[in-house]
Amino acid sequence: MSGQRERILAPHRSIRRFRPEPLPEGTLERLVAEAQRAPTDATGQMYSFVRVADPAVRERIAAFSGEQQHIVEAAEFLVVCADLHRLFRVLKLRGLKVGRFPAVGLHLGVVDATLAAQRLIDAAEAMGLGICCIGGVLNGIEELVERLALPTGVVPLFGLCLGWPAEAPAPRPRVALDAVLHEDRYRDQSAAEIEGDVAAMAATTRSGDWVKVLARYFAAGGVMEQREAALRRVLERQGFAW
Amino acid sequence: MSGQRERILAPHRSIRRFRPEPLPEGTLERLVAEAQRAPTDATGQMYSFVRVADPAVRERIAAFSGEQQHIVEAAEFLVVCADLHRLFRVLKLRGLKVGRFPAVGLHLGVVDATLAAQRLIDAAEAMGLGICCIGGVLNGIEELVERLALPTGVVPLFGLCLGWPAEAPAPRPRVALDAVLHEDRYRDQSAAEIEGDVAAMAATTRSGDWVKVLARYFAAGGVMEQREAALRRVLERQGFAW
Repeated sequence: MSGQRERILAPHRSIRRFRPEPLPEGTLERLVAEAQRAPTDATGQMYSFVRVADPAVRERIAAFSGEQQHIVEAAEFLVVCADLHRLFRVLKLRGLKVGRFPAVGLHLGVVDATLAAQRLIDAAEAMGLGICCIGGVLNGIEELVERLALPTGVVPLFGLCLGWPAEAPAPRPRVALDAVLHEDRYRDQSAAEIEGDVAAMAATTRSGDWVKVLARYFAAGGVMEQREAALRRVLERQGFAW
Repeated sequence: MSGQRERILAPHRSIRRFRPEPLPEGTLERLVAEAQRAPTDATGQMYSFVRVADPAVRERIAAFSGEQQHIVEAAEFLVVCADLHRLFRVLKLRGLKVGRFPAVGLHLGVVDATLAAQRLIDAAEAMGLGICCIGGVLNGIEELVERLALPTGVVPLFGLCLGWPAEAPAPRPRVALDAVLHEDRYRDQSAAEIEGDVAAMAATTRSGDWVKVLARYFAAGGVMEQREAALRRVLERQGFAW
C-alpha cells in the first residue's frame, strides 16, 4: 500500500523503542485537548484516560501484557477507558434516574473512547511522537481495574505508549483495500483474494506466514480465548453485563 | 477550550449541511487507505466500511435515524462495522478451528473499527471535508444488518457522512480536561466541578441546559434504553452474545 498514494496524515507504525526524554511541559495536555475534539455520541464524552506515572505500576502492566518493556520506557503511558460513570454522576446530581442499557452503554463507551484515543494518536504522530497501542492489558484487566481504582461504569480498553521514537520501522502491510470497503452490500472475498492478503501480510510476521500469527491469537485455544473469562467478569463487575 | 491552545489537527465540528458536489475521483479510496494505516490489534484489521450508494437505502437510514437529511445529502455515507468474519475466513480456509471469545471479539472489533474510522475522519478533515457521525443508526440496527447483508461476525457501529461543508459551525464545548485525564487512580469530580461542566456545555444545547440533553438520551425511559433490546438481538444474531 505504501507509496501508492499521496499521504494525508503522518505515517503510522507502532514504535516500541523510545528515547528517554520526557514530553515537553504541557504536551500531554495539548494532546488530550485534541482528543476531546473528537466526535462524541449525544454530547456524552464517555471516556477517561488514566496516565500511569507510578513506575511500579508500569512494571506490573509490562509484566502481565507480555514483557513489553516499552510500557516502562515510553515517556507516557495511558490506559484508555470507556467511561459512563462521569455522565451518570451528572444525572444523579440532578436527581434523575439513570437508564439501564448495558449493551448500548458498552457500545457507546468503547466507540467514544476509541474515537478520542485515535484523534490523540493522529495529533501525537503529527508532532513527530511515536505511539504503540497495547492490547495485552486485557491479560491483566481485573488487576488493572483494581490498581487504577476504576468505578462501576468504567472499563479499560487498551494501553497507549507515547514518546520520542528511537527506531524508524517501515509501515506494516495491510489487507487489500477492497477487502474492507464494500458497496451497498457486504461482499465476501474469494479464496484467491484471501490468499492474496495472506501473501501481502507475510512481511508483518517473523515466520513469513500470517496465518500462524492469526492462529496464535484467534484460533481455538489461542490468546483471545484465554482473555475471555476475565473480560466477562470485568464487564459484569463494572455494570455492562446483560 | 478553543483558542486556549495551539491546534495540531484540523478543528472538528459535525457538519450537517453539505454542498452537492461529489468527492473527486479516488478520494474515498485514499481516505480508506489512510484508515487502514490505523493501529490494529494482533494484525487483525477487524473492520469493514460499507459505502451506501443506493439513494433509497440512504432515505431509509435517514428516516429511522431521526430524519437526518444529511445522510441523504452528503457526498458519501459509510456504515462503520466491527468485522471478525473476514479474519475467521482466513483461519477456516487453512482448516483451523476458530476460537470462541464473543466478549473479547466484540471489544477488539469495536476498537479496531473505531480507530480506523477516526483516522479516516482526521484525514478527511485535513483535506477540508466535513463529517458527521450518526449514532442514530442504532435505531434501525436490525434493518441495517438485513439491508447491508452483514454476515455473522459483523456488527454496524455508527454511520459517517462525508462531503464538502456548506456551513461553518463553531466547535462545540467539552467538559474540563481534568475530568477526562486522571493520574494513577481514577479521580471523581466534585459536585462543583460537575456544575462547571454543565455550565460549560450549555452552549451545545438549544435549551441552555445540558442536563436536559443528557436526560433525553441517557435517563430512564430515554433514547439509549429504547435502543437496548434491538442491539442485544443483533449481538446475539451476529455471534457476540455470551
